[in-house]
Amino acid sequence: MTILVSNDDGIHAPGIQCLAECLKQLAPVLTVAPDRNCSGASNSLTLENPLRIVHLDEQTISVKGTPTDCVHLAINELVDDLPELVVAGINAGANLGDDVLYSGTVAAAMEGRNLGLPAIAVSLVGSEGKHYQTAAEVTLKLIKQLREHALPSNQILNVNVPDLPLEQIKGLKVTRAGSRHRAEVMVKQQDPRGHDIYWLGPPGAKQDAGEGTDFHAVAQGYVSITPLTIDMTAHSFIGKLDTWIKDWEAR
Amino acid sequence: MTILVSNDDGIHAPGIQCLAECLKQLAPVLTVAPDRNCSGASNSLTLENPLRIVHLDEQTISVKGTPTDCVHLAINELVDDLPELVVAGINAGANLGDDVLYSGTVAAAMEGRNLGLPAIAVSLVGSEGKHYQTAAEVTLKLIKQLREHALPSNQILNVNVPDLPLEQIKGLKVTRAGSRHRAEVMVKQQDPRGHDIYWLGPPGAKQDAGEGTDFHAVAQGYVSITPLTIDMTAHSFIGKLDTWIKDWEAR
Amino acid sequence: MTILVSNDDGIHAPGIQCLAECLKQLAPVLTVAPDRNCSGASNSLTLENPLRIVHLDEQTISVKGTPTDCVHLAINELVDDLPELVVAGINAGANLGDDVLYSGTVAAAMEGRNLGLPAIAVSLVGSEGKHYQTAAEVTLKLIKQLREHALPSNQILNVNVPDLPLEQIKGLKVTRAGSRHRAEVMVKQQDPRGHDIYWLGPPGAKQDAGEGTDFHAVAQGYVSITPLTIDMTAHSFIGKLDTWIKDWEAR
Amino acid sequence: MTILVSNDDGIHAPGIQCLAECLKQLAPVLTVAPDRNCSGASNSLTLENPLRIVHLDEQTISVKGTPTDCVHLAINELVDDLPELVVAGINAGANLGDDVLYSGTVAAAMEGRNLGLPAIAVSLVGSEGKHYQTAAEVTLKLIKQLREHALPSNQILNVNVPDLPLEQIKGLKVTRAGSRHRAEVMVKQQDPRGHDIYWLGPPGAKQDAGEGTDFHAVAQGYVSITPLTIDMTAHSFIGKLDTWIKDWEAR
Repeated sequence: MTILVSNDDGIHAPGIQCLAECLKQLAPVLTVAPDRNCSGASNSLTLENPLRIVHLDEQTISVKGTPTDCVHLAINELVDDLPELVVAGINAGANLGDDVLYSGTVAAAMEGRNLGLPAIAVSLVGSEGKHYQTAAEVTLKLIKQLREHALPSNQILNVNVPDLPLEQIKGLKVTRAGSRHRAEVMVKQQDPRGHDIYWLGPPGAKQDAGEGTDFHAVAQGYVSITPLTIDMTAHSFIGKLDTWIKDWEAR
Repeated sequence: MTILVSNDDGIHAPGIQCLAECLKQLAPVLTVAPDRNCSGASNSLTLENPLRIVHLDEQTISVKGTPTDCVHLAINELVDDLPELVVAGINAGANLGDDVLYSGTVAAAMEGRNLGLPAIAVSLVGSEGKHYQTAAEVTLKLIKQLREHALPSNQILNVNVPDLPLEQIKGLKVTRAGSRHRAEVMVKQQDPRGHDIYWLGPPGAKQDAGEGTDFHAVAQGYVSITPLTIDMTAHSFIGKLDTWIKDWEAR
Repeated sequence: MTILVSNDDGIHAPGIQCLAECLKQLAPVLTVAPDRNCSGASNSLTLENPLRIVHLDEQTISVKGTPTDCVHLAINELVDDLPELVVAGINAGANLGDDVLYSGTVAAAMEGRNLGLPAIAVSLVGSEGKHYQTAAEVTLKLIKQLREHALPSNQILNVNVPDLPLEQIKGLKVTRAGSRHRAEVMVKQQDPRGHDIYWLGPPGAKQDAGEGTDFHAVAQGYVSITPLTIDMTAHSFIGKLDTWIKDWEAR
Repeated sequence: MTILVSNDDGIHAPGIQCLAECLKQLAPVLTVAPDRNCSGASNSLTLENPLRIVHLDEQTISVKGTPTDCVHLAINELVDDLPELVVAGINAGANLGDDVLYSGTVAAAMEGRNLGLPAIAVSLVGSEGKHYQTAAEVTLKLIKQLREHALPSNQILNVNVPDLPLEQIKGLKVTRAGSRHRAEVMVKQQDPRGHDIYWLGPPGAKQDAGEGTDFHAVAQGYVSITPLTIDMTAHSFIGKLDTWIKDWEAR
């Protein structure tokens, strides 16, 4: 069975090429990824425009669309048989804490899960991008082991790998997503024609980054593995909210 | 204190205009919304391009960006004092079940929450868009009542209102998000120049839509109120996954 | 008969609103313009995506497309009867010399001409945008007078108006397009995430701007009227090129 | 000296790859082209967003921008020494008659000319794209011969090559641009969500396509070479227009 590979950095990014190459040891790989960098694409869908594809080679398809579009198109239209799993990445930079809400790489994995497949998002921590090979090999090993256990049906794994040689990785840690402080202030500039423009600033610094979090694990040299759910209901709050609502209606 | 209003259907959509008009009864309203329809934008951020704004009038700002960009820009750059809350909508069409992952309207509310403010997403069920006024008045009432209770810090309310005259609404129900079947197949066509194009199909039919779900509530004529969390960690799975991982590492 | 008004600065720009308002004295006005600023759009067409429209009011239609798309869509699809003429503008800033190749405002007029209608592009010189009313009144007067003479079938008028009160305008001058020096160097920056970006620099300084040119006329306080042709063949060079080619083939 | 190659079909199109490969026989080739299909881009510039580049290999740079952006960026920023000339193409499909106004391939050549370099646009007639090699070899030969004669400073050559094996090409013909009938009606559809969309229709049929035109030459099996000027002034009309204007002012 095929492994479907996608990402949000775009089909020409080094991370996806390293990942696809490495996973070929396990199974045939089909790469379907955005034609452009879509960092920050979250689970966005292209609804107003059609998708178009370009076959870069037999197993590599460039899509004019978002990461979610890519996985959706691949599974629903481009493959004959369902892939074994979806692997998204290797993202250039961490997807830790609140980042998961905005990440197109995490979203690509979530789309695989929504369409019924086990799915993993993989990111390389830091901005230098030296050791994609480490992340690829960690992923390879993880996939082999997941073949023994089915992931729960509405969950994906979000994997963050320190940018270190494989032998310096201390191990794997299962974590919860921490959180960041609010993003830094926006950057207000003028373009060369004198018009005001605003750039989103870099992500905020770590806030909830103590033991048990994804931030903490990678800071200590471990691979962080966070199970994420696609069920966003705040189940624990339903009861109390129900009381409030009934109380209001009773007045 | 100001109420910040945004949406994903774009600043010219009837739902946002009806909502802003109605909430003026409560507080000054600042509307900051995308210049174009961004349905399906999810929590996407504009990172590769700068944002630009156009003041349509004193209290209405059009942004070349996503719903999340709008809320982020408004709170971090455009207001002097923090708004009291963020209200996103009224969306043209339901945001039920899995829709919440893809909705830019829900995302706009989540961004408000991420930046520290209580937040509500409001949608009008169905495709006809007859009774935005009903949804606006339900929202008005809900906001008044929320002033008595603080919403938990990482949660928002996702409100879906049947497209009915106010007096035909049966009441409010606190619900969990149901789920849909996989989206229908993609639509493959050729453009007028003979090139292949692919459209994402409409959302799938209801799957998990039984009692207790948002689908069920609106189908019965109730307003559905679902608390959503922005913490995507699958806490209940951490223990078991940890066992698996330790077992693998031990081999 | 209706006058069709479009521009490249987008439907919310002050220039198009002033122009449409003024021309209503002459005839019913239909405004069909891009939903966003499309400065620099030239004659570009939207071929890969469909166009979508939003009716802002009965006589004002916002198009998700380029200026050329707008005129094409309006004439071929949105009107019942052919308009009397197409007026594009009032552009925020001059369209002088080489600018005409890149201007979406000039292109909107050219599209009108290509579809069989007389057409005028109007621009307000300078960056302050104080006297749109002057440009609107000059245009009004020009249209009245053009009703006496048919413009040649493959030509449009490119009108540039100094940003002065009407009574300070010295008169009208028929001109040829001058030329600019090469655009200034590009602006290389890094975005807030540290990635290289390049901005096109401002247009170059005047080069061929002597008497008889559009640059010269506006600098002297005159309205410049340049007839432009949509036939790009370099007729005067055909003979010599033919000799070269025959000579080559004879060898 | 380097030859700069660009196009409007995007950097992954077969035509540009064939062209770049063939011209390497003459000189080092630098390919700088849009990351996506930009057919119909005309001379459009990206002014509101910055340009970004990806090096696909040492001599191949993908640009998030229009054809004109690509040539502008390459010459002003990416090269150390000015190239010898700019060659744009090989376009997938003809650029005949009015097409030249809308073509991004012709525009890329015009931008080279505006920046001081001789420039050629090359297109392969028809929709099948069988004989790019023919067009590449014709271009190679033409460049060799142009080295003997300088093209006039404000002109480019627009070359259209029949899609035939080289030995079936009857020769070269210097032509003027013919013209087409108005484009066919727009295609109005509904997208899968039921919203109205409009597609620009295919180009109109030939109108002015008699002997001497580019249409006629290619229909007879000749390569058509049309000199185009970047001076859009309608010089022949200046005198008469001047009379009209003076007459009006005199009243």
